[in-house]
Amino acid sequence: MPIITCDIRNGRTKEQKHQLAMQLTEAVVEATGCDIDHIFLVMREMPGFNFVDAGEHVPEYVPGPDGMDMAGHEQIKSRKEKASHN
Amino acid sequence: MPIITCDIRNGRTKEQKHQLAMQLTEAVVEATGCDIDHIFLVMREMPGFNFVDAGEHVPEYVPGPDGMDMAGHEQIKSRKEKASHN
Amino acid sequence: MPIITCDIRNGRTKEQKHQLAMQLTEAVVEATGCDIDHIFLVMREMPGFNFVDAGEHVPEYVPGPDGMDMAGHEQIKSRKEKASHN
Amino acid sequence: MPIITCDIRNGRTKEQKHQLAMQLTEAVVEATGCDIDHIFLVMREMPGFNFVDAGEHVPEYVPGPDGMDMAGHEQIKSRKEKASHN
Amino acid sequence: MPIITCDIRNGRTKEQKHQLAMQLTEAVVEATGCDIDHIFLVMREMPGFNFVDAGEHVPEYVPGPDGMDMAGHEQIKSRKEKASHN
Amino acid sequence: MPIITCDIRNGRTKEQKHQLAMQLTEAVVEATGCDIDHIFLVMREMPGFNFVDAGEHVPEYVPGPDGMDMAGHEQIKSRKEKASHN
Repeated sequence: MPIITCDIRNGRTKEQKHQLAMQLTEAVVEATGCDIDHIFLVMREMPGFNFVDAGEHVPEYVPGPDGMDMAGHEQIKSRKEKASHN
Repeated sequence: MPIITCDIRNGRTKEQKHQLAMQLTEAVVEATGCDIDHIFLVMREMPGFNFVDAGEHVPEYVPGPDGMDMAGHEQIKSRKEKASHN
Repeated sequence: MPIITCDIRNGRTKEQKHQLAMQLTEAVVEATGCDIDHIFLVMREMPGFNFVDAGEHVPEYVPGPDGMDMAGHEQIKSRKEKASHN
Repeated sequence: MPIITCDIRNGRTKEQKHQLAMQLTEAVVEATGCDIDHIFLVMREMPGFNFVDAGEHVPEYVPGPDGMDMAGHEQIKSRKEKASHN
Repeated sequence: MPIITCDIRNGRTKEQKHQLAMQLTEAVVEATGCDIDHIFLVMREMPGFNFVDAGEHVPEYVPGPDGMDMAGHEQIKSRKEKASHN
Repeated sequence: MPIITCDIRNGRTKEQKHQLAMQLTEAVVEATGCDIDHIFLVMREMPGFNFVDAGEHVPEYVPGPDGMDMAGHEQIKSRKEKASHN
């Protein structure tokens, strides 16, 4: 009887949200043995700016090829570079 | 940069909670293309009694073979029977 | 001192949201004996698509006569039919 | 298809939690016209100390006659007195 | 590793949301000794009407000088007056 | 009228939770100009194992000198080392 909530950034397509919801639901079915009838999920969407990770606003979602998030991609690259210089 | 929260019943083993967390995390990686570094998840546990689905308290989690939830199993069976008589 | 949160679909009128808020607040006053001054409630609204119940996206809210939800009504009817054939 | 969450203090009896859950569920049925089958509720319980209202920790729940909360009762009285002296 | 969520009313500027996020993040760093890398925050925004405090809808946010909330200001004044007459 | 929720690990003292709550409340007062009377906060506590950050369970909170979290300290050190080798 799990309730799953998922806070994500605005900008994903219905198809992407569908994929996310289905994979989360299946993950719960497989891991808990719960019947799918008892799994309830809500995706809450907000601007990237409203998410703050490690004291930095998350950039807005920028769709790239194959649903890749170009903005997040840049941020990860720059963090790994920073970390490697510490 | 998703935050996943999962409200589940007390009674699952660490191994079961680990499975749940890993499968949810992987589901988000696959569906959103997010780097795993930006995925944060919390599992909140409460007694089954604190969950109320369709106006009925959910029975406490009862571990069966292969991690199956015996209590939920009974409840589903009884609902399907009720529904088929409506 | 309860905090109530309510995740609902977009599309309800202010009047309907007012009804919902008042009835939830009164329910807490009656059931807990809490003074109304200590009850805080937030209604979060998202598209129906963002709600996934038993692995199916919930249809968008469609206002019918007397505030009835025509979309939900159809879905319930079809589930009961499915269940009765299992 | 609403999801209701309710953060309350530890210490209420099963009977009190049952009353709370039923009244919240009925409030949603009446106000939204939703079928009860689509209403899901979770009550999360924490010590009173973990609730902070207006910068003050909430006292632990103290059961009085008729399920009245004696601790909350004292707090409300003292606040009204303070306010009337401002 | 705290997750902070903050439900606020629509209408604040990016600069105000930035201030809020930074001050919340710093508060957690100072109070818990957590490394900033493990602090994750999401601000959820909804109309003032969706917030119900003590059985009254909260007025929409109205920006005043220095970021002061004129609507909230009026409400507080009127409550203190009411309380002082009780 | 903000509602702040904070999901943290078990193990902190009342004094530490008090510090956290006060600093979060003050942060909201300063950043939003809200009257303290309208700020409501709940701290939810769960075992470290229930938090999963970047696909890894968070170690349980281990109190060190000055409220420092020894477990988190070790984890951060090991991550920075990993990152610097990438």
